[in-house]
Amino acid sequence: MDMREVLEKVKQGEISVEEAEHYFRKAPFDEMGYAKLDMHRQIRSGFPEVIFCSGKADAHLVPIVKRLYEANGEVFGTRASEHQYQMLKEIYPQIQYDPISHILKIENKEKKEGVGLIAVCTAGTADIPVAEEAAQTAEYFGAKVERIYDVGVAGIHRLFARLDAIQDANCVVAVAGMEGALASVLGGLVNKPVIAVPTSVGYGASMNGISALLTMINSCANGIATVNIDNGYGAGYIATQINRMGVKEK
Amino acid sequence: MDMREVLEKVKQGEISVEEAEHYFRKAPFDEMGYAKLDMHRQIRSGFPEVIFCSGKADAHLVPIVKRLYEANGEVFGTRASEHQYQMLKEIYPQIQYDPISHILKIENKEKKEGVGLIAVCTAGTADIPVAEEAAQTAEYFGAKVERIYDVGVAGIHRLFARLDAIQDANCVVAVAGMEGALASVLGGLVNKPVIAVPTSVGYGASMNGISALLTMINSCANGIATVNIDNGYGAGYIATQINRMGVKEK
Amino acid sequence: MDMREVLEKVKQGEISVEEAEHYFRKAPFDEMGYAKLDMHRQIRSGFPEVIFCSGKADAHLVPIVKRLYEANGEVFGTRASEHQYQMLKEIYPQIQYDPISHILKIENKEKKEGVGLIAVCTAGTADIPVAEEAAQTAEYFGAKVERIYDVGVAGIHRLFARLDAIQDANCVVAVAGMEGALASVLGGLVNKPVIAVPTSVGYGASMNGISALLTMINSCANGIATVNIDNGYGAGYIATQINRMGVKEK
Amino acid sequence: MDMREVLEKVKQGEISVEEAEHYFRKAPFDEMGYAKLDMHRQIRSGFPEVIFCSGKADAHLVPIVKRLYEANGEVFGTRASEHQYQMLKEIYPQIQYDPISHILKIENKEKKEGVGLIAVCTAGTADIPVAEEAAQTAEYFGAKVERIYDVGVAGIHRLFARLDAIQDANCVVAVAGMEGALASVLGGLVNKPVIAVPTSVGYGASMNGISALLTMINSCANGIATVNIDNGYGAGYIATQINRMGVKEK
Amino acid sequence: MDMREVLEKVKQGEISVEEAEHYFRKAPFDEMGYAKLDMHRQIRSGFPEVIFCSGKADAHLVPIVKRLYEANGEVFGTRASEHQYQMLKEIYPQIQYDPISHILKIENKEKKEGVGLIAVCTAGTADIPVAEEAAQTAEYFGAKVERIYDVGVAGIHRLFARLDAIQDANCVVAVAGMEGALASVLGGLVNKPVIAVPTSVGYGASMNGISALLTMINSCANGIATVNIDNGYGAGYIATQINRMGVKEK
Amino acid sequence: MDMREVLEKVKQGEISVEEAEHYFRKAPFDEMGYAKLDMHRQIRSGFPEVIFCSGKADAHLVPIVKRLYEANGEVFGTRASEHQYQMLKEIYPQIQYDPISHILKIENKEKKEGVGLIAVCTAGTADIPVAEEAAQTAEYFGAKVERIYDVGVAGIHRLFARLDAIQDANCVVAVAGMEGALASVLGGLVNKPVIAVPTSVGYGASMNGISALLTMINSCANGIATVNIDNGYGAGYIATQINRMGVKEK
Amino acid sequence: MDMREVLEKVKQGEISVEEAEHYFRKAPFDEMGYAKLDMHRQIRSGFPEVIFCSGKADAHLVPIVKRLYEANGEVFGTRASEHQYQMLKEIYPQIQYDPISHILKIENKEKKEGVGLIAVCTAGTADIPVAEEAAQTAEYFGAKVERIYDVGVAGIHRLFARLDAIQDANCVVAVAGMEGALASVLGGLVNKPVIAVPTSVGYGASMNGISALLTMINSCANGIATVNIDNGYGAGYIATQINRMGVKEK
Amino acid sequence: MDMREVLEKVKQGEISVEEAEHYFRKAPFDEMGYAKLDMHRQIRSGFPEVIFCSGKADAHLVPIVKRLYEANGEVFGTRASEHQYQMLKEIYPQIQYDPISHILKIENKEKKEGVGLIAVCTAGTADIPVAEEAAQTAEYFGAKVERIYDVGVAGIHRLFARLDAIQDANCVVAVAGMEGALASVLGGLVNKPVIAVPTSVGYGASMNGISALLTMINSCANGIATVNIDNGYGAGYIATQINRMGVKEK
Repeated sequence: MDMREVLEKVKQGEISVEEAEHYFRKAPFDEMGYAKLDMHRQIRSGFPEVIFCSGKADAHLVPIVKRLYEANGEVFGTRASEHQYQMLKEIYPQIQYDPISHILKIENKEKKEGVGLIAVCTAGTADIPVAEEAAQTAEYFGAKVERIYDVGVAGIHRLFARLDAIQDANCVVAVAGMEGALASVLGGLVNKPVIAVPTSVGYGASMNGISALLTMINSCANGIATVNIDNGYGAGYIATQINRMGVKEK
Repeated sequence: MDMREVLEKVKQGEISVEEAEHYFRKAPFDEMGYAKLDMHRQIRSGFPEVIFCSGKADAHLVPIVKRLYEANGEVFGTRASEHQYQMLKEIYPQIQYDPISHILKIENKEKKEGVGLIAVCTAGTADIPVAEEAAQTAEYFGAKVERIYDVGVAGIHRLFARLDAIQDANCVVAVAGMEGALASVLGGLVNKPVIAVPTSVGYGASMNGISALLTMINSCANGIATVNIDNGYGAGYIATQINRMGVKEK
Repeated sequence: MDMREVLEKVKQGEISVEEAEHYFRKAPFDEMGYAKLDMHRQIRSGFPEVIFCSGKADAHLVPIVKRLYEANGEVFGTRASEHQYQMLKEIYPQIQYDPISHILKIENKEKKEGVGLIAVCTAGTADIPVAEEAAQTAEYFGAKVERIYDVGVAGIHRLFARLDAIQDANCVVAVAGMEGALASVLGGLVNKPVIAVPTSVGYGASMNGISALLTMINSCANGIATVNIDNGYGAGYIATQINRMGVKEK
Repeated sequence: MDMREVLEKVKQGEISVEEAEHYFRKAPFDEMGYAKLDMHRQIRSGFPEVIFCSGKADAHLVPIVKRLYEANGEVFGTRASEHQYQMLKEIYPQIQYDPISHILKIENKEKKEGVGLIAVCTAGTADIPVAEEAAQTAEYFGAKVERIYDVGVAGIHRLFARLDAIQDANCVVAVAGMEGALASVLGGLVNKPVIAVPTSVGYGASMNGISALLTMINSCANGIATVNIDNGYGAGYIATQINRMGVKEK
Repeated sequence: MDMREVLEKVKQGEISVEEAEHYFRKAPFDEMGYAKLDMHRQIRSGFPEVIFCSGKADAHLVPIVKRLYEANGEVFGTRASEHQYQMLKEIYPQIQYDPISHILKIENKEKKEGVGLIAVCTAGTADIPVAEEAAQTAEYFGAKVERIYDVGVAGIHRLFARLDAIQDANCVVAVAGMEGALASVLGGLVNKPVIAVPTSVGYGASMNGISALLTMINSCANGIATVNIDNGYGAGYIATQINRMGVKEK
Repeated sequence: MDMREVLEKVKQGEISVEEAEHYFRKAPFDEMGYAKLDMHRQIRSGFPEVIFCSGKADAHLVPIVKRLYEANGEVFGTRASEHQYQMLKEIYPQIQYDPISHILKIENKEKKEGVGLIAVCTAGTADIPVAEEAAQTAEYFGAKVERIYDVGVAGIHRLFARLDAIQDANCVVAVAGMEGALASVLGGLVNKPVIAVPTSVGYGASMNGISALLTMINSCANGIATVNIDNGYGAGYIATQINRMGVKEK
Repeated sequence: MDMREVLEKVKQGEISVEEAEHYFRKAPFDEMGYAKLDMHRQIRSGFPEVIFCSGKADAHLVPIVKRLYEANGEVFGTRASEHQYQMLKEIYPQIQYDPISHILKIENKEKKEGVGLIAVCTAGTADIPVAEEAAQTAEYFGAKVERIYDVGVAGIHRLFARLDAIQDANCVVAVAGMEGALASVLGGLVNKPVIAVPTSVGYGASMNGISALLTMINSCANGIATVNIDNGYGAGYIATQINRMGVKEK
Repeated sequence: MDMREVLEKVKQGEISVEEAEHYFRKAPFDEMGYAKLDMHRQIRSGFPEVIFCSGKADAHLVPIVKRLYEANGEVFGTRASEHQYQMLKEIYPQIQYDPISHILKIENKEKKEGVGLIAVCTAGTADIPVAEEAAQTAEYFGAKVERIYDVGVAGIHRLFARLDAIQDANCVVAVAGMEGALASVLGGLVNKPVIAVPTSVGYGASMNGISALLTMINSCANGIATVNIDNGYGAGYIATQINRMGVKEK
């Protein structure tokens, strides 16, 4: 029921002024006191609400999971701890946990068949946890993902060996720490958007990913945009948005 | 002629080993001594080469413009000065210059009819030069653009008044300086990718755009990725890539 | 006419659905293409719209001044240049310009009699331009202001000599560059809110005011909050809000 | 007894020169060796002394609590640990501890009835500990507080649903981490002072709250001033000062 | 034996060319492989070598202590851990450890009678560990020290109550974290050098003492110079050098 | 007349309560509206007030110079421009200006005979302006100064050639930009306090002196304290304080 | 077999087009899923692949060690933990671990006789772990290394005592934390390249090595280039490259 | 005459004690008051002294040029202005000036024939001034240089087309601004040392070269060391040192 419908109904007397006022005021969310769950999110954006588990108190996490599971039949949580997994497993034995990406999920697999193609690339092995957060997020949201790991610029022949797969994707996610040069090299080799994800991998002047972030933001290549350090989820999300657009007539 | 073709022709004796070697070695660029113009760019990426005019010596700029104009029948330069415009106008009287965006171009308008839709939004009036660089870049590359300026979060009703136009776009470009909060608000209101462009507008702790950049990188909203400070061109480029994907069956 | 009234009128048929929709959509601002002047600002916030002149093109500044002068009978611009003043003076001979604070105004003095009391203090002489921006902003918005300049902590007896005046104020504005310690000392001496304004006065490690900003943000004294570097206008604005609350029976 | 009274008494011979000298010299504090408790604080500022518990040695904390409890009949400590609570509970069984805000207090509830209204808003659930420090501080100091949590800009409809309550307050406290855009949006929606509190919530380029601090300091909205990262206490304090001014005829 | 003496002796044949060469080459230090103890330090600088214990391996610390104790009959170590103390106590039962300042020492008290006067001031209670490192260092090196703690600028009357003692000193050490304003206030009140020591006390934008360091470096007061964050030892050292100069005819 | 005297006189009826109150309130400074000249400075600190000329308006500078010249028979200004010199020369033909150090002065030379010894050292030629500000400040305040320029650590033999002069000084001022290593080397070679002055000399990662400042603050040598970048005046001031202490029986 | 050979063989029909294509595509690395081991590295660069052990999962480290040991008969790992050593020791009892440098290795000593000379110098004892990483890396790669530790500039005579050894080297590695001045002093004393390694040794404003890095990057001495903070391995590697060039007729 | 010789002669009475003392004291430099020219530099380091012209006063530059020209028959100055060139040209008509690199020189060409090979690469056209400073410095010091410009990673095929030339060099200089990724890519492709030179080319988050510097310092490739931003001279110097070592039997 959109705004015009509401106004029409007010005019027709089908709904009262108070109801209309309520409509305009009421936000489509679930007030839980400490949180306001956005239950219309999937309708508005095409993506269900996801839980950022890190730092959530047990007493808060359980009802949030419960409420979202009831609504969607699925649950997807990022940055979950082993402890949170164990706790939730007692309630939802079917819940799955990946200790690499720290993703927790109850997924309704049969309804999904990944569409399009997203290439998720990493510079090194240490960047894989962030890359997996991106890849699994995109898969949960319905994209097909190709993983191309350990192709950093210090051994660029490894990247060229996988170039075909990369060039086939609708969107490339470039995950790199240290000097983060992978994004620029990819930007020069593909004609699709590259989402750059700096990671906190490195030491010394890497300053927990700030250096890689600066590298990516300053890239001399075209078609690159950057998300926060270690934000695999954010990269997976926007890559899915782009990938969906690239999937014609689906 | 791709690699396999070349190899086949070597086998058939149609081309010599030297010619093949030359093929593999030779990059598709024009060596000009001080620059290497990428003439195959349009073929590879679907975007013609663009000139970053800022700081280019006159003696370098003229031959670069000449060479690209010969190849493409069009020329598009960013960050051009009034002086560069006057100098080139004597050679190309048809050249156009926009003192707001500092874009210089010879454009072949009849062949273009903007496709899809990109919404370019600014927080304030002072962000318009960067927004115009983004908008005109996207238009040059063939996109239709809707400009929605001065809708910063300090007067958020101005943004809501234009929400329909924003929600219709395939991609939203959010241009903002100072605290740069516009991108987050937009990210929460649309279901398409938002490309955030921090600007150097502001003073004091804005640190020439670093603050706005940090705001955008840290956004709590989904579907946002960020380019360099004042990088309207970069935003227009990636927005065009995304917009093209959203244009079905064109 | 508030939301409920609109809805009632729709119900009564006094206004059409289209008109109501227009009401909800239409923002109370003046669309000028490059700017959206907030004409309802005074009603909503009790403060008329103010012009940040710095960097505004002449062709934009003149119509903005014109429009606001028509609406309010007054105009107040900050960070104006001598050039802007000369240009506007030809149209509005009564316009006034203060080269210290860079404030430009047409003020309707008779209707104003400053209420309450705001104390604006500076650490040194070089902080006066920022302090005057704060003081004159507050005066324009109807506050009475006491100026207490050059009372920095390196000669703290100068501050104590003026303590009575400072302690009488409803709000104290502390303007200081270099190490910015004035705010902390004032915070310990008064029982009213202190609005701290770091200035870009200093050299070397003052980093154009970042050091003073950090000092103020880290203050060990209570009752201090900070605005941007050199943001005299912002300090004058919030000090006026606080001062108004302190003026009983208005 | 103020300065003039002392001088009159010296003249009258009612007090000796030495006593007068002592008066001018003697500071109204309790010398405890490692600390100097400010016992006149409530008289001077209207606020009793509060204990910043973090890092205080047990051997120091106990006598400080004892001394303040004797003087005021109340005790209020921020950033207290569970250990400090357990230790003090053995001496003061009535002491209360809130593990969310880390506030420790012995409060004399009957004498309090919150006056005025302060709205404490958070962008997310993770900002609640800082918001509670602000809210409970304001309540301890005698203000009425409305809590409006999880209304960050990425889902701005949640904020609008609570706008009435926010607009009724004498002062709004905006608590946000990550990109901290909440303060700017609130600044544009209310006509009362907004005290912005950046939090260290976030990761990567949030740099433990520095990004949110910069966002708030650079806000394009009027009527905003900022306190230190995670400084809920400081925000509660200055909000109380402002709220008291808004309470007429008390 | 200085250079001229050596050369004279070479000429007289009293020492061989080899011996002279050895003299010029040989540095007056004890080569221990992993360390080169400077045994002539006291002769050159008037200060015995001191041990920075933090991070020293047990296997290295013991022989260093042994060697210095043999040479000087005293040992003074900074930043020692409880573990290091326990380990050394088994060898030197007379060793003393102060858990506040983390100083470890075997001191030959009878030969010392503090000369001159150094005032060591802190802004708060949490700055005491650094202040004690400064005070005890100065005392070990033979200075008389007056401790004046918890006199931060937020309650400046506490500082004035102790002003006489501060003004009597040959050198003032100002130890402060958070905004570090104490040094500036002291600089304006005394006519002797103030050595400022920023501490890492604080949170949020204090950035582990960087803010306090910047405040002190940018001080508008005269006669202030600054040492590293938490460097109580360094402050005690240079304060002793200055104090010795102020002690006439010793 | 100190506090006790005033109180005695009140008791004796020699001065009225109002006069006494006035005494306690009145600060010993000259109120000039825009500035408060500290006329008791020399009495309190032994140093006359000095003018920081940079950025002072002509209309402010002239009366300040006049007032100080009347009081002291001397004037000393730092960071003066050529223009300020020309303007003041018309009033005071005897005024002197040094374009290297930008010092402006009317000095009463006969009464001065430099005492003690301060060694002012620079790493390079480009550091001389800052060094001269330090040296001339110290000379104006009555110290004898030895200049030792261009002895940076990249050619450390140049430093050793002048070591005797350096070791004779009561205080060493080490002026260096770029990496600023000179202070550490000097700290290891002398047994007197070293005042380190970072300069903004350098480029790239020198960040206008921040790198040199950090080097000096982190020095591993003892007996070093640091002033602000380019703060020759501050170094000259504190060096004079130290030097005076080293001059016995004066 | 280089490119020309392959092309010739295609022409001769000795290899098929598919094989040639495979040749061009196939990178000389071992695909292990989570890693791509560069097995041709020694051929291409003259240096075998080295393992950065830090953060590697046990399940990944074991097969990587196995694969490299099979290929090279040697294994060299940096930043290894005690745990990793214990785990690998069960498989390779001959493996060696140095707890100072955290280097893990199986080395084929008989084939090595260090050539040339690299001098590895440290400023202090705490810099030794990084220096040992550099020294042992260079030794593993076949260089002769001279260790010269604890020769920081605060006691520069210790450095001069070892100058001959330093001047004999083909390359000098300067390892220093805190203010990092050692590199500049060495740069002025030798005529061979100095590789500077900042370390995270220090506290306060050393910012975990950033200060030392800035010092080294800003060095006024010639012939210095810098690697990342604590990057002993990187310094050992490039020093070996330089040293090999200095070894004539090998 | 080395130390031993001097001592022997003292013993033999061939030189007096005073003469010997003078020898040890006297540094081999030319004292010019404001500068100390290092005349023995060429003997010690194999490189003549070079003049950093930027900011040198005319009255200082002329005698320095004169003195060095007399000594060496050559002069080489970096960062010279057009004005300095014109001034010196009147004295030395044979002096040459390159407005791109800002190098000023009187060179004795016939004695030079470049040895070895240094490859100087740039990412873009705007990096050429810094690259030329490096290249011409190396040529002046006797190296053969190959220039390979505009081979940035956004069009990596341009780099591969020139790979042979790069791989032939004894040392590669990688000059790049913006994100500075060129150095890492080169480090992975060659087996000789890569000297990385960040440039201040870029805008926004490039922060005048700091981003490029961080990229290079954090490089994941081996064999890379970095000099200061825009320090072409420094790179040319150390590259020459390395190149000389690679030239066998010269």
